[in-house]
This record gives sequence, structure tokens and C-alpha cells, in this order.
Amino acid sequence: MIQIDYKLNTIKTALVTLHNNKLFEFLVIGVIILSSLLIGVKTYDIDPAYLTILQVMDLSVTVFFLIEILIRFATAENKKRFFHNGWNVFDTIIVVVSIIPIDQSEYALLARLIRIFRVLRLISAIPELRKLVSALVKALPSMGYVLLLMFILFYMYAAVGSFIFEPINKELWGDIAIAMLTLFRVVTFEDWTDVMYETMKIHPWSWAYYLSFIFFNAFVFLNMMIGIVIDKMQAENNQELSEQDINLQDRLARIEQKLDNLKS
Amino acid sequence: MIQIDYKLNTIKTALVTLHNNKLFEFLVIGVIILSSLLIGVKTYDIDPAYLTILQVMDLSVTVFFLIEILIRFATAENKKRFFHNGWNVFDTIIVVVSIIPIDQSEYALLARLIRIFRVLRLISAIPELRKLVSALVKALPSMGYVLLLMFILFYMYAAVGSFIFEPINKELWGDIAIAMLTLFRVVTFEDWTDVMYETMKIHPWSWAYYLSFIFFNAFVFLNMMIGIVIDKMQAENNQELSEQDINLQDRLARIEQKLDNLKS
Amino acid sequence: MIQIDYKLNTIKTALVTLHNNKLFEFLVIGVIILSSLLIGVKTYDIDPAYLTILQVMDLSVTVFFLIEILIRFATAENKKRFFHNGWNVFDTIIVVVSIIPIDQSEYALLARLIRIFRVLRLISAIPELRKLVSALVKALPSMGYVLLLMFILFYMYAAVGSFIFEPINKELWGDIAIAMLTLFRVVTFEDWTDVMYETMKIHPWSWAYYLSFIFFNAFVFLNMMIGIVIDKMQAENNQELSEQDINLQDRLARIEQKLDNLKS
Amino acid sequence: MIQIDYKLNTIKTALVTLHNNKLFEFLVIGVIILSSLLIGVKTYDIDPAYLTILQVMDLSVTVFFLIEILIRFATAENKKRFFHNGWNVFDTIIVVVSIIPIDQSEYALLARLIRIFRVLRLISAIPELRKLVSALVKALPSMGYVLLLMFILFYMYAAVGSFIFEPINKELWGDIAIAMLTLFRVVTFEDWTDVMYETMKIHPWSWAYYLSFIFFNAFVFLNMMIGIVIDKMQAENNQELSEQDINLQDRLARIEQKLDNLKS
Repeated sequence: MIQIDYKLNTIKTALVTLHNNKLFEFLVIGVIILSSLLIGVKTYDIDPAYLTILQVMDLSVTVFFLIEILIRFATAENKKRFFHNGWNVFDTIIVVVSIIPIDQSEYALLARLIRIFRVLRLISAIPELRKLVSALVKALPSMGYVLLLMFILFYMYAAVGSFIFEPINKELWGDIAIAMLTLFRVVTFEDWTDVMYETMKIHPWSWAYYLSFIFFNAFVFLNMMIGIVIDKMQAENNQELSEQDINLQDRLARIEQKLDNLKS
Repeated sequence: MIQIDYKLNTIKTALVTLHNNKLFEFLVIGVIILSSLLIGVKTYDIDPAYLTILQVMDLSVTVFFLIEILIRFATAENKKRFFHNGWNVFDTIIVVVSIIPIDQSEYALLARLIRIFRVLRLISAIPELRKLVSALVKALPSMGYVLLLMFILFYMYAAVGSFIFEPINKELWGDIAIAMLTLFRVVTFEDWTDVMYETMKIHPWSWAYYLSFIFFNAFVFLNMMIGIVIDKMQAENNQELSEQDINLQDRLARIEQKLDNLKS
Repeated sequence: MIQIDYKLNTIKTALVTLHNNKLFEFLVIGVIILSSLLIGVKTYDIDPAYLTILQVMDLSVTVFFLIEILIRFATAENKKRFFHNGWNVFDTIIVVVSIIPIDQSEYALLARLIRIFRVLRLISAIPELRKLVSALVKALPSMGYVLLLMFILFYMYAAVGSFIFEPINKELWGDIAIAMLTLFRVVTFEDWTDVMYETMKIHPWSWAYYLSFIFFNAFVFLNMMIGIVIDKMQAENNQELSEQDINLQDRLARIEQKLDNLKS
Repeated sequence: MIQIDYKLNTIKTALVTLHNNKLFEFLVIGVIILSSLLIGVKTYDIDPAYLTILQVMDLSVTVFFLIEILIRFATAENKKRFFHNGWNVFDTIIVVVSIIPIDQSEYALLARLIRIFRVLRLISAIPELRKLVSALVKALPSMGYVLLLMFILFYMYAAVGSFIFEPINKELWGDIAIAMLTLFRVVTFEDWTDVMYETMKIHPWSWAYYLSFIFFNAFVFLNMMIGIVIDKMQAENNQELSEQDINLQDRLARIEQKLDNLKS
């Protein structure tokens, strides 16, 4: 019994050594890049002769990913907290999903699409990208209400457009969903004058509809951007100023103390 | 007499309790969303069988909004100041306008358009959106003179374009208003080279007209944006610095005072 | 002799009073707006009956402007320094040019174009716009070298494009000037893929030419913008920090002085 | 022997005087501009009569550049460190490459292309541009990981697009490389709705593919820009604050010292 425990411990120590090895890290990144390249290669017309090679490589990558995640789980100090880390959950899902046996003939496309998510493992494998994505996710809530406001703007204009312009062009203004897509097109300035000139023939004042929409959106968008910049800056500035402040305050407190001592 | 007063008071207390209820707030937001969805649904071709349901729901929403605004008015502590709040005026106008009986056959479109403004009640119902819109409205004046400058730029270029290019394409340069619309199109880069290539065939140097216009506008626009960012930052920075300053100054004043005491 | 002097002085005092009158200022702005509207009106097809009215109004505006500039010159305290002010020179040129008699039949268009510059007088008449334009002119030099760098980029790419792509499309790549215009079109994303797809048929790798050009330009442009924002902020921040600093330093110097007094 | 040494020294002194001469600097810039103009002129159809003149001028410029770089090398104080300066290496390569004799009949185009790089010498000749480019190169690494993240985004979406949309349009979605180019086109908003409308006919929900791609990219790009602005500002702000801080701390330390002296 003790011997088995001892052996298990030896294995675990070996795995930890392996896991912390810089070379192993590079190997993992290398395999992820290889698997990404495999996905890219499959979009080309490939000679059937090479197809088998690709399938073997695909399988090897799947097995490697499975082993890698098992090693990571085995070397985790606290097994329960392993899935508290979002990135571990993320990697595990990608690995588990890609080993589900999918009937190649029928759901071949689905199997292919699922494998594309392996490219995302590059993000969890490179610490700098992981940090970057975490920062991006944190920045999302601050944009939430602005996006809601823009959605309301889109919804109202789409309703108006759909009511008034539907008889002119059903493909652009057929219902509120299509109208919102058309308005998004207008906001990206993509042939928006074609859309406008068409409605202006029947409603000569409809340019006001488009221009006001563009101005409102640009205005809200600009203010959102400026708001984010200033918020972030304020946060960092405050921290710094207060650090400096604490420093000065400490010194002044000491001087005051000494003055008090002098008095007594 | 006293009994009636007492009853009224009981009703008012009940209304205040209702109005301050978190659930009631969510109910209001829910009804606004429902009314927004109704507007969207009407843009689709609906089975006449469901049309009656929609009309009933529409009427219910109108009645609900009317009751809600009455409750708000009834629970307002100072009736006179109720309409000093812009948002109350805003909500009241939307409700009042939507209960005006409009002959469904003739002005059906107008009735529909007016109902679209109900979506805006979402802004007045959600405090965060209310704050956001207030901030946006405050940001407007700082852009006023820049927009005037851009308008002068548009007006002058449109006058030049209308004088010189009118014989080439009446639809783009027919009069100063059309020319300004064409110039706005140029500024959004929407098929602007088509406009330019057309005039360059007769006036080979007209590219200078378009490029200078694009550069002037981009330059003014960029400087406006940078100006707003810096103004806002300065305002917040000043406040913070001066807060820190006051803190330090207070402390230093105290030290000076103690020194003076020591002397005497 | 003395009587004439006295009369002149009375007239001058009257003119100064007139010139400083707020109402006179609004009158000037009003006339400028009227003259701007006249320019706009002329771009429409006008009934010959109204043409005479327009010409009379045009002449009145010209005379008014002439009188206004003469009053300004007469009321200027230092006649020599009158033309040291850029805005005075600006206004004088516009007035002088518009009273040059131009043969209406031959150079009618030229006469019209010159009159358009009267719109610019709005800038010199409104102090806020004057300040804004002064600030913009000051911001120009800081962009100078970046624009030169971008010009070099354009010139080199245009030379390459003109050498390689000329046989494909003479209208887009005929010579270096046309090629630069085409590249500006690419940078504004205006149907740039049409330009690219055309050359990719013969030079399949030419996408690298377009993408690298777009990236270089975007990169230089972005860095320019960021640079300007930071420069301006630094300038204002420094000023503020140093103001606070001087304040604190003064206080500390006073405390030190008192300590020294105490010692002795 | 001594006489030769003396003569060499005299020559070197003369060269240093020449090299440090402001006029010589302007001459160099002038020749670079001339050589740039020559490149531009060659893109036009030139009369064969002038062709010989151009070739002579071209040769003169080549010789001048060769002499100039030799003078610079001769006047360099430390010959070994001459090539440690990136700009010297840059200039030398351009000069060396342009004196390689290329058979005019066969590789005429290549010879022409190489000569275009001479325009870049303008950057190394003008100190302000040199500084600007150095700053730009330094700014590159901070964008590295964001660009990698965007590349991953492009790669994944291109794989998905290539798998699903290939049967619809082989020219836009044929393989992953073409699909990435198409996605870049979508991101620049260049006729992106044409691409979308085409796939929406067969996959009605494919608008979600395009919109999500546009949003992800815009979001990552915006955050990158904001990040760079804030990073740069923080760096400069810190420096300044700490300078002010040191100043105050010094003064306070002196006051404390004096208090201690007083005590004893």
C-alpha cells in the first residue's frame, strides 16, 4: 500500500516537474499552433493521399490535448478549486467536446466547426493574451448601458423606417429586424446613400431621417469612448495621487508630532 | 367630511407604498418593454386573427401608462414642482399624446408613429439611462461652435460646388441644399470617388476641392474630439488635485499655527 | 480749424460709441448671415423678376461691409497696428476684393466665387469662432512632420504602384499623381477591394501591397492622434501641478523661516 | 610619411568641416528630393530626348550619394561603431544596392523599384522624421499581443466562413487565406453588405456571423487604442508627480532636520 502511494507520489512529482517545465509550455503552444494550421489546411482542396495523414495528426492533437489537461488536473494542488478557474473550465470544455465521437458522414461540418474552437486555446496558453482578454471582459459592463441606449435608438428608427419605407423597398424595410440591419448598414456608411436616394424619391425629406440617425449614433458613440478613456484614467490617477498623498501626510504627521513633543 | 379625508389619506399612503415598491418599478419597465415589442410585432404581416389581440394589448398598455402617471402625480409631494422635472414632462407628453383619439382609417400611420415614442419611456424608467442621457445633453454645448464651424465649411464648399459643378450633374449639385448632402456623402467616404471622377473629367483639378474638404473636416473633427477629452479630464483632475491640495494646506496651516504658539 | 477738429472728434466719439454698441455687433453678424443666405439663394433657379432685388441686396451688403470696415479703421486707436491683427487684414481683403468691378458677363462665375468668401466673415465676427480657428491654426505645426511622413509613404507606394500596375489600369495607375489619388481612395476604404481584385488577377500577391499600405497609414495616423492628445494634456497638467507646487513650496518656505527665527 | 599623414589629416579636417556645414546638410536633403522627383517623373511618358538627361541625373545622384556616405564614414570618429547606428546601416544599404549594376533590359523594373527606396533617405536626413520613426518603432511592441488576438479572431472566423460559405462563393470563401481577406474587407466596411446579403439568401442567420465579427473587432481595437493612450499618459504623469514629490519630500526632510536640531 505504502509502495503504491510512494509510486503515485513519484509520478505526481514527475508530472509537476514536467508541467512547470518551460519546454513543455512551448510544446503545448506548438501543438495548439499545429492544430490551428490543420484547421486552415482543411479549407483547401487536399489530395486524398494526404487526407489520412491529416486525420492521424488530428487524432494525435486530440490525444495530446486530453493528456495535457489530465496532467494539469493531476498536478493541481486543490482539485476542488481547479474548475473555479475560468480558463481551466474553458480548456476542459474544448477538449471534452472535441473527443465526442461524431458520425463523420452526417455531422462532418459540425465536427469541423467544433474543432475550430481549439484555436482559442492559444489565448489560454499564452499568459499575455489571457491577461488581455480578462481586461477586455472587465471593460464590457461599462459599455452596457450605452449599448442599450444605442439599441433603443436603432429600435425606434427601425420601427419608423419599417412603417414609412416598407412600400418602397420590402427587402430593406420589410420588418423591424430587417430595418435594424439596414440601419446598421447606414451607420457603417456602406452604400447608405443608395438607401437614402431611393426613399428620397417618394419622401423628399427622408434625408433628415438618415442624417439625424447618423448624428445621434456618432454622438452617443463618441461620448461613450471619451467616457471610458476618462474613467480609466481617473481610476489610475486617483490611485497614484493618493499614494503620493499618503506619503506626504505621513511626513507631515511626523513633523506635527515632533512639534507637539517640543511644546511639552 | 373627516371620514373622506381619512379615506383619501389612506389611499394616498397605499399609492406611495405601491409607487416605491421595487416590484412596481419592474412592472413598469416590463410594460414598457411589452409595448415596445408590440410596436415591433406590428411591422410584420400579422394574421388578422391576432390583430384583435394586439389592439387589446395596445389599449391595456395605454391605460396602464395613464394610471401609472396619475399615481406618480398623486404621490408627488409638491404638485407644483412635478412639471419642473423634465422627465415627468417627457412621460406625461408621451402618455397624453397616445390617448388622443385618432381616426384609425385616415391617420393610422401617424397614430403608429406616435406610439413609437413610448420606447423612449425606457430611458426615463431606468435611472442609469436617465443619467447617461443627461450627461449627453450636457456635453452638447461644448460641441456647438465646432459644429457651427463645420457648417460654415459645408456651406461655403456647397456654394462653390453648386456654382461650378451644377452643369455636370444636377442631381448632385443642383442647389446648395443638395450640394451639402453630396458633401456629407463625400465626408462619409460613401462612393465619393464616383462623385470626384465625374467632375474631374471636365475640371481635372477638382480633386483638390474634394481632398481639401476632407482634410479640413477631418482636422476640425479630430481637434474637437481631442478638445473634449482634454476639457473633461482637466475638469476632473483639477477637482482632485485641489482636494488633495486643501488637505495638505490644512495640515500645513496647523503646523504653522503650532509654530506660532511655540514662539509666543 | 479748431472747429473742424472738434467736429471730427465728435464724429469719432460717435463712431466709437456705435462700434462698441452690442446692437451694432448683432447687426454686423445679421448682415453677414444675410449675405451668406444670398449666396445660397443664387444656387437655385430664380425668377428673373426677383433677380434685380437680389442684385440690389448684394450691392447693399457690399456697401455695408465697406462702411463697417471704414468705421473699424476710423475707431482704431493705433492706425499703424490695425493691420497687425490678422483678422482685420482678413476682413479688409474680403471687402476690397468684393468691390473690384468685374465684368458681369465674362467673369460672372469668378465674381460669384469671390463673394462666397464673405461667409468666412462670420468666423471673424463671432469671438468664439475666432478663438477656435486660432487654436486650430496653432495645432497645425504639431502635425507637420507626421503629414510629411505620410506623404513620403504615399509617394513611395504610388511610385511602386505606378511602375507595376500601370499596364493593368491606366486610369488608376497612369502616373504617380493619379496613383497617389488612387492610394488616397484606398486609405478611405472607398471601393478599395475593386482596385485590389483587379490587380490580384495578374499579380496574385498584390494584396500585400494594399494591406501593408493600409496598416502603415493607420499606424502612423493613430500614433499622431495619441501623440497630440498626450502633448496637450501634458502641457496643461504641468501648469496645474506647478501651480499647486508653488503654493505648497511657499507655505513650506514660510514654516522653515519661522523655524529659523525660533532657533535664533 | 609624416607629410602624407599630415595631408590626410588636412583632408579629414576639411571633410569634417564640410560634413558639419549646415549648407551641406541642405544640399544632401536637396539631392534626396531631386532623386525622389526623378522617380516620380519616370512614371510619366517622357520624350526620348529627355530620357538621356534623366539617366545622367540619375547617375549623378547615385555618385553623390556614394560620396556622401563615404564622407560620413571618413568623418566618423569611431569607425567600428559607425554601423551600430541603425540609420547609417540603412543609408549604406540603400546606396550599395543602387550601385549594383543591373542589366537594364531584363531587370529594368527591379532597378526602378530599388531606386524608390532612396525616397526613404529623406527620413534619415531630417532629424525630426528620424525621431518620429524611432518613436513609432518603439510603439510597435505594445500593440503586438492585441494584433495577435485580432489575428486569432480573423483566423477562426475565416475557418468558419470557409467551411460554411465556400459553396456559395468560391471567390470570397474558397480557402482560409481568401476568407481572411474577405473578412478584412468586411472590417473596413467595403461593400460588406454585398457579401452578407449573398450568404443570407442561403443561411438567413448569417448576419449574426458578420455583426459579431464587426463588434468583436471594434471592441478589441477600441480597447487597444484606449490602452495605449492611458499607458503613455501614466508613464509621463508618474515621472512628473514623482519629480514634484521629491521636491516636497526634500523640503520636509529639511524642516524635520531643523526641528530635531531645535530639540537637542
